Amino acid sequence: MKKGIAASKGYAIGKVLLQKHEEIIITDSKIKDVEAEKAVLQNALDASKEQLQKIKAKAVESMGQEKAEVFEAHITLLDDPEFTGGMMLEIESNSINSLKAVDNITNTFVMIFEAMENTYMRERAADIKDVSKRIIANLAGKGGEDLGITEENTIVVAEDLTPSDTAQLDRTKVVAFLTNIGGRTSHSAIMARTLEIPAIVGLKDITTSVKTGDSIIVDGIEGICIINPDQSVIDEYMAKKEIFIAKEEELKKLIGVKTKTKSGKRIEVCGNIGQPEDVDNVLAYGGDGVGLFRTEFLYMDRESAPTEEEQYNSYKYVLEKTEGKQVVIRTLDIGGDKTLPYLPLPEEMNPFLGYRAIRLCLDRKDIFRVQIRALLRASIHGNLAVMFPMISGLEEFQAAKEFVEECKVELKAEGIAYSDTIQWGIMVEIPAAAVCADELAKHVDFFSIGTNDLIQYTLAADRMSEKVAYLYNPMHPAVLRLIKMTIDGAHKHGKWVGMCGEMAGDEAAIATLVEYGLDEFSMSATSILTAKKIIIEQK
Amino acid sequence: MKKGIAASKGYAIGKVLLQKHEEIIITDSKIKDVEAEKAVLQNALDASKEQLQKIKAKAVESMGQEKAEVFEAHITLLDDPEFTGGMMLEIESNSINSLKAVDNITNTFVMIFEAMENTYMRERAADIKDVSKRIIANLAGKGGEDLGITEENTIVVAEDLTPSDTAQLDRTKVVAFLTNIGGRTSHSAIMARTLEIPAIVGLKDITTSVKTGDSIIVDGIEGICIINPDQSVIDEYMAKKEIFIAKEEELKKLIGVKTKTKSGKRIEVCGNIGQPEDVDNVLAYGGDGVGLFRTEFLYMDRESAPTEEEQYNSYKYVLEKTEGKQVVIRTLDIGGDKTLPYLPLPEEMNPFLGYRAIRLCLDRKDIFRVQIRALLRASIHGNLAVMFPMISGLEEFQAAKEFVEECKVELKAEGIAYSDTIQWGIMVEIPAAAVCADELAKHVDFFSIGTNDLIQYTLAADRMSEKVAYLYNPMHPAVLRLIKMTIDGAHKHGKWVGMCGEMAGDEAAIATLVEYGLDEFSMSATSILTAKKIIIEQK
Repeated sequence: MKKGIAASKGYAIGKVLLQKHEEIIITDSKIKDVEAEKAVLQNALDASKEQLQKIKAKAVESMGQEKAEVFEAHITLLDDPEFTGGMMLEIESNSINSLKAVDNITNTFVMIFEAMENTYMRERAADIKDVSKRIIANLAGKGGEDLGITEENTIVVAEDLTPSDTAQLDRTKVVAFLTNIGGRTSHSAIMARTLEIPAIVGLKDITTSVKTGDSIIVDGIEGICIINPDQSVIDEYMAKKEIFIAKEEELKKLIGVKTKTKSGKRIEVCGNIGQPEDVDNVLAYGGDGVGLFRTEFLYMDRESAPTEEEQYNSYKYVLEKTEGKQVVIRTLDIGGDKTLPYLPLPEEMNPFLGYRAIRLCLDRKDIFRVQIRALLRASIHGNLAVMFPMISGLEEFQAAKEFVEECKVELKAEGIAYSDTIQWGIMVEIPAAAVCADELAKHVDFFSIGTNDLIQYTLAADRMSEKVAYLYNPMHPAVLRLIKMTIDGAHKHGKWVGMCGEMAGDEAAIATLVEYGLDEFSMSATSILTAKKIIIEQK
Repeated sequence: MKKGIAASKGYAIGKVLLQKHEEIIITDSKIKDVEAEKAVLQNALDASKEQLQKIKAKAVESMGQEKAEVFEAHITLLDDPEFTGGMMLEIESNSINSLKAVDNITNTFVMIFEAMENTYMRERAADIKDVSKRIIANLAGKGGEDLGITEENTIVVAEDLTPSDTAQLDRTKVVAFLTNIGGRTSHSAIMARTLEIPAIVGLKDITTSVKTGDSIIVDGIEGICIINPDQSVIDEYMAKKEIFIAKEEELKKLIGVKTKTKSGKRIEVCGNIGQPEDVDNVLAYGGDGVGLFRTEFLYMDRESAPTEEEQYNSYKYVLEKTEGKQVVIRTLDIGGDKTLPYLPLPEEMNPFLGYRAIRLCLDRKDIFRVQIRALLRASIHGNLAVMFPMISGLEEFQAAKEFVEECKVELKAEGIAYSDTIQWGIMVEIPAAAVCADELAKHVDFFSIGTNDLIQYTLAADRMSEKVAYLYNPMHPAVLRLIKMTIDGAHKHGKWVGMCGEMAGDEAAIATLVEYGLDEFSMSATSILTAKKIIIEQK
């Protein structure tokens, strides 16, 4: 038995297919014919592009447009003047062989990305490695081979799976995968959850603990796998698997159900999204709408801020798809641990206590204006609620609202329509907002409790800091009291309260939150059905 | 009229003495006789040491032992093998002249210190510059000259005043000083307050705006100076000065008075200290005891942690000096922006939300044990209360108390005495502690509200971050509510509440805090009398 990180839930029983880790030897031998070597590299790039286009098409089918976008990014990398252009230049200037040229440029890029403070950018190093691995395989004449899986009930075991490896897994044959490295948020883990294939990552030495053909049980809930189990253990897990599948089926019946507690209180269960296309998944899992659209994702992974038109189209897409269901869009929450390449921020000792979110937007009206105008314009396409992040007091909410009025005047003068029924609310994620909720409730249309930050500030504990992460506790009595104060404060003035932090999807917290009177829960799409089930069991 | 940073209050009217900024030219010419050049440097070092010893003696007299310690640090630098030893090595290895050698090593040291994240260490760069300037002056044959002040009512105007310049000011003749650079916490500003000389720093270009002999008014309250004023303005400020002095005299009458509100509630007004000797100042200003002894200062500016014996002596000193008045000692609050050279801390993205204070002590019992044993041993010498910093919940307080019991068992076994009447309390500086004050009050003997951190966490605003410092507001309704909750929670269970953050000495806040029922105020010694005056005027 081996224990790793549970990356995707479910059970599987099958045979190991050990993915060989073929070593390609790279020397620094010089070449004579620069043009010929460049042609060799170009062929490998072309082959890589062709393979990636196929993989992308397959991924669109199996995982949807949005998740497949990563391969579009990979394809773009193949034409990047700094990246593949740099490889060509290496051959030209230094007469080095193409394998070495790819390796050099890749190392430089990976080093740059891995040194970045921003987690998102750091993770992009994995994309670069994936693409580079493919180019090298093609240069070595080993590209484009699939895993060659012919047997049913195959469990793939590998050092690591790149996004393109994962996307190529044949779901009719592969029932689970296991890797030595990776964490819950690594690409392969996210893809496993999307594909609904059980997976365990971070098993450290699974590739040397099993051989192809071994029988193995994968428990994607506990994060354990059992190698060459007895029949009695197999029977036990077969039973567990059946119960799991039955429960999943049971949950799926809740997709169309409007959630009410036993006493008849209607509670909305919504989804959190980061990209417009995520809304498809929320609706597929029976979400009552979108409780949090993290618009900062529209700003990331690009060279400049999205234009008013681009943002308008993103918001419109979600508002139209939801067909009148409520969509809560949060204005730009950048700063803290989230940075943008084109928006330099001041160096701060404690960025979580610094220049971010509404603080930045009220200071940078040039940036804020684009988003507010786009939101106002999109409002006519559905049921829009807008909330401001990191509000600490009334002044900030009023300043933001005043700015909205300015933008409305502009639009009116330009003859552009907007809805008059937009709801305007705030994130309650700073202790001050929770403590003064009863006062703030007089002025806002709704609250949405952001538990991730609220817990951090209330307990003065950064959950990213290993040494104090143990203090980060959603059920700390102070956190619960602040949540209660927020809900009571809002209800006193007839306003509704949602929650969009991770706590909203935490099975251990839902009963308490229902008891406190929370009106709306918003969480990742895959948690919606379980939450619905728990809520309908409450008084 | 020019405006700068008010560094030390009071009024002065007098004549400018512009301190010349003599340029000493340093070339990189090589020398031939290494030994002779080393002897030249050694002479300059000896002369510097002799001057500094005189300055130190003078400073002990005018400012007290503790403030004079900085010159002991300067003297030590003169024998530092890395610092002056490095200069000798420069001459020996590279045959460069002594002036250049001093300059090179100084620049390296200043660069290293200024690059440090820790504010305290960064400020040490000023000490290095001060010592270096003295060595260079001695090398150039210009050392040991004093300012040559012979006239009364002299107002010294300089680019900057080093600590040694300031300590040498003849208080019978110098009535104020003005500098181009510096801030409220720079060495010269602190010294001006100790010497009770009005001072304005950060005036930017005062040295080029006046000449020696100009008549000038210094308003150390508003931070303005008026150059060559009319007689009417002089008369106006003469009157202000008289009123100011009369008020100061009036305040001094309160030194022996026990503070009570008009309705007869007794309120303790105590002092904050960082070094044992600071207690003298607290008592001189009529403090009712020590409300906060920041023990981390015992750990700073040294090569290793203070021993149990050293700490015992420090605590004993304060407890004996206070003769039965209450002394609240806070256990080690290191981490955040305070680091120790001999205690490496993990790199954290948000150190204010990280591994610090009680979190560190509960993790590093080896360090904590030394302090707790020293406190227990010292307890027999006076009226001791101990508090733990950064408590977020009951578990931490209980873990700390359990550890105290362990230490008591040890001492008992060793036959060492300790008092049974020590009070054990907590700092309320994390929002969670304020929110749950009524629960915590059942278990502690007292609370002390640490407003600096409480405000930062409640508003999620690091006041050190320029971009968000505007949010840091002690009178924010959420902060006031948390203070009220803390006081009410304590009183419900018959416990007393003090406050030791800056807000306790904030003239604008005192009336509100008295109204809320705060039992004890603790502040810098120089604010005690003003606070007493305000308190006795309250209902």
